[in-house]
Amino acid sequence: MDTAIGGYNYGDIPASPVSLEELQLLKQTVDLTDADIAWLRRAGDVLEDQTAQVVGAWREVIAANPHLARYYWSREGVPDENYKARVARRFQQWILDVCRRSYDRPWLDYQHEIGARHTHLKKNMADAANAVPHIPLRYVIAFTAVINGRVKPFLAAKGASVADAEAMHGAWCKATLLHVALWSRPYVSESDW
Amino acid sequence: MDTAIGGYNYGDIPASPVSLEELQLLKQTVDLTDADIAWLRRAGDVLEDQTAQVVGAWREVIAANPHLARYYWSREGVPDENYKARVARRFQQWILDVCRRSYDRPWLDYQHEIGARHTHLKKNMADAANAVPHIPLRYVIAFTAVINGRVKPFLAAKGASVADAEAMHGAWCKATLLHVALWSRPYVSESDW
Repeated sequence: MDTAIGGYNYGDIPASPVSLEELQLLKQTVDLTDADIAWLRRAGDVLEDQTAQVVGAWREVIAANPHLARYYWSREGVPDENYKARVARRFQQWILDVCRRSYDRPWLDYQHEIGARHTHLKKNMADAANAVPHIPLRYVIAFTAVINGRVKPFLAAKGASVADAEAMHGAWCKATLLHVALWSRPYVSESDW
Repeated sequence: MDTAIGGYNYGDIPASPVSLEELQLLKQTVDLTDADIAWLRRAGDVLEDQTAQVVGAWREVIAANPHLARYYWSREGVPDENYKARVARRFQQWILDVCRRSYDRPWLDYQHEIGARHTHLKKNMADAANAVPHIPLRYVIAFTAVINGRVKPFLAAKGASVADAEAMHGAWCKATLLHVALWSRPYVSESDW
């Protein structure tokens, strides 16, 4: 655990209401195989020293869209650079967590925390920020297209063949949709989720 | 409009509560460009006579997972083959709609209808079925990984180059996440969505 990352409380947060059995069924729903896990590990090695650039590629889309960028701004429209920088470091760490973490109970708990940090339940709190307090669920889901599309060129680095990069990307896309499914939990009632 | 498809009521359903302005911002959030629209049209031509096989590839994952297959079953666990067959035909048509429809007001309205048909609000109704009445949001989101992953080989048909298939797939993945973002609307409160 890299305690130098502000607000990165992996292993030290409340339990997710999601059970390990529900997690297992979600893994099956995205069709995450053992081979995919191995490709994610490989992707971690490929992306390890590119995480700042990957986050930069994602944030190009955010920066070009005020309806997205505003979640780093105060309600009055003033960008909070400190908040944005702290989130960027966690976003970078998230890339490595997607690739390298065991998807176990501590990981499951942390996904619920990440989901809640997009909502009025917990947004801004880890950073004592005063930004717009809630990101609508539709943007969390829709932005996955950018997360998945724009990571792809970075997977073709470090001598990965086209087929290897393809396999890493396939595993990555399954993994991110697993994440987003878990992040949606704080947005909906237990019976609808 | 193909009126031969049972329960396919495109153009003849209630208005979505989502505005065209909200749709525009969602298109920007998935980064859907004019070039992507052109690639979707091309994908429509490539997939046109393969839609049954594509749905079959998706349903392999459903069939292998009782926690997914049960949404075609009665509460007592009896598969409803008529319902399943009707849904399959609409699922096939959906592939072509993703690729060929203008994402305008009638399309937006129909996405809300599709979303609602996954929930206790409208599931089963178009088919007078008696199946399990609600598909949890987490499975709708997570299964997008299968929808996107398993369509890919079919895009490499009809002489499409590797680069062409790649571009079609990139556009497809943006489009499906736009769809799922809209389908999530009936699951959440207006202020959270």
